[in-house]
Amino acid sequence: MATMQDVANLANVSLATVSFTINDSKPVSPKTRAKVEAAMKDLGYRRNAVGSALARGRTHVLALLYPALQHRFSPTSVRFFTSAADQARLRGYNLVLWPMSNDAEAVTELTSSGLVDGVVLMEVQLDDPRVSELSGSAVPFALIGRTRDTTGIPFVDVDFESAVENAIDRLVELGHTDLVLIDGGVGNQLLGGYGPVARTRKAFGEVTAQRGLSGAIMSGVHSSAGGRELAKEFAAKHPETTGVLMMNEHAGPGFVAGLQQAGYRLPQDISVLALASSLDTASMSEPEMAVLISPADELGRLGVDVLIDQIDKKNNPLPQLLIECSYSPGATMGPALKHGR
Amino acid sequence: MATMQDVANLANVSLATVSFTINDSKPVSPKTRAKVEAAMKDLGYRRNAVGSALARGRTHVLALLYPALQHRFSPTSVRFFTSAADQARLRGYNLVLWPMSNDAEAVTELTSSGLVDGVVLMEVQLDDPRVSELSGSAVPFALIGRTRDTTGIPFVDVDFESAVENAIDRLVELGHTDLVLIDGGVGNQLLGGYGPVARTRKAFGEVTAQRGLSGAIMSGVHSSAGGRELAKEFAAKHPETTGVLMMNEHAGPGFVAGLQQAGYRLPQDISVLALASSLDTASMSEPEMAVLISPADELGRLGVDVLIDQIDKKNNPLPQLLIECSYSPGATMGPALKHGR
Repeated sequence: MATMQDVANLANVSLATVSFTINDSKPVSPKTRAKVEAAMKDLGYRRNAVGSALARGRTHVLALLYPALQHRFSPTSVRFFTSAADQARLRGYNLVLWPMSNDAEAVTELTSSGLVDGVVLMEVQLDDPRVSELSGSAVPFALIGRTRDTTGIPFVDVDFESAVENAIDRLVELGHTDLVLIDGGVGNQLLGGYGPVARTRKAFGEVTAQRGLSGAIMSGVHSSAGGRELAKEFAAKHPETTGVLMMNEHAGPGFVAGLQQAGYRLPQDISVLALASSLDTASMSEPEMAVLISPADELGRLGVDVLIDQIDKKNNPLPQLLIECSYSPGATMGPALKHGR
Repeated sequence: MATMQDVANLANVSLATVSFTINDSKPVSPKTRAKVEAAMKDLGYRRNAVGSALARGRTHVLALLYPALQHRFSPTSVRFFTSAADQARLRGYNLVLWPMSNDAEAVTELTSSGLVDGVVLMEVQLDDPRVSELSGSAVPFALIGRTRDTTGIPFVDVDFESAVENAIDRLVELGHTDLVLIDGGVGNQLLGGYGPVARTRKAFGEVTAQRGLSGAIMSGVHSSAGGRELAKEFAAKHPETTGVLMMNEHAGPGFVAGLQQAGYRLPQDISVLALASSLDTASMSEPEMAVLISPADELGRLGVDVLIDQIDKKNNPLPQLLIECSYSPGATMGPALKHGR
């Protein structure tokens, strides 16, 4: 690919003159402009974002950082991304999905590269080294998710605490008093305290204790096959339980299938409520799951708005927003039978 | 963000001198170097990819173009992306997912921006304006998928023709002679002829005709709810059919659920074989689907290898590779019962 230096060499002018010509950043004589433009044409060099970025400090590219090689994308993660990309486009930016693990150095490399005008961070941990790194950089950022200490940190997040309370309320109304929360808090998600899992577990413990309910927690891998395994383990360990909060989107449909293989009828023997999931995942199981739908579309859009407003220096104070999940009924919810299984 | 021009202004040197200092592209006196480095430090400007890109024409960023706002990511698309990103990282590049629809102008804007060293294109159409645009640019590219005319086009793709033949062979061996292919060929996927759908339909028509089988085609939307709708429509339109090739990953689990709601027993009344899908999707349904697994991991990796080899000028001739799907058994496959339903 032809570089600005190639253009400068061919036109026999300085690199600075090429920059001034391309970016209209200083006056250039018509003769010089003609030489530079002829060289650009000969070399196939086009007025480009890199040149513009140098002149203006802007590429109009935003990076959504997601640890795609560590956390497999769920249908809900996809909605976060597409909604954010859509909103970015509406506001004149390209939002790209940048795979990046829990690695402060990789964040530094990106923010100092000049390639992106701003960063949206997903899969935030309670104590997240990437957030400290972003806070110390000159590149604007916004979190979808939040750290333990959110002082001075712009974020949008799911209101997991209210979702847990909402789910428990619905199960208690149907007479369920013995509950299990299933999440995906195994492996690397727990390193550093993965926010959604940590907050949901804490709220589940507090609400079940306050109301005198029995509440246990199980974890499984992020796959449908993992959900089937979980169902076997669940049937063996928690025969008295009649209500399940399922916060592992990949495992949900397999868990419902596995329950039935283990002899459960839904909802007569057990109620299952998917937490912070999607309608599409809910409708993959038979019967279709009741679900508290993650506000993923709204959060993707808001995350980008919070970011671009900062780039445009419009945010004062920095927004910190929690959005609730919305309930959609499904055939996996029914009254607890007094006699049990 | 501080620009190179800001550094030049503060150090009271030319933009070219800053460039020479940063990129070691021409000798600079120790005194000048010290002034430039002091200014960079004061402004928080770091040796960066944009500066380097100008000097060397490299950013070490690769873009995987995917129409994420038009085609929803499936578990298999996710595997293409993560495998490609993983391989790129191994070879010293960052591969980012760049949402881009069927828009030749957006391709031009990207290839002329200088922001990426190469492009991998997914969701390729038979006559794809983006491919013509990439062919005319100086930026190396590779397709995952392929156009009708592949002369001079580097690509890796699923061997859909052999997958269809494999699937039909397996159903015929079990005695099935009345088959339906279900795909997701509705809406914008058919604009310009979406390669996988067009190739699969053609092969299905040819192989069923050659073998004297009954073969019909149905299409549905890309969702689990769409799969349930399809099952109703299928039961009404094709009561004689005992074998289904399911090439709509999002709709698969809902279709299997919907068949059972419509009174089918699997596999006694009907066999379902998922085509170019994933084990995870197959295990979301109850019973688990038999599946011809898309070689997504291999294709993601090979697509990136083909691209980086071009950047390194190692490809001669340009690779064109077709990879077969691999079979995994499931409880949705069984012998055709002579008496039908």
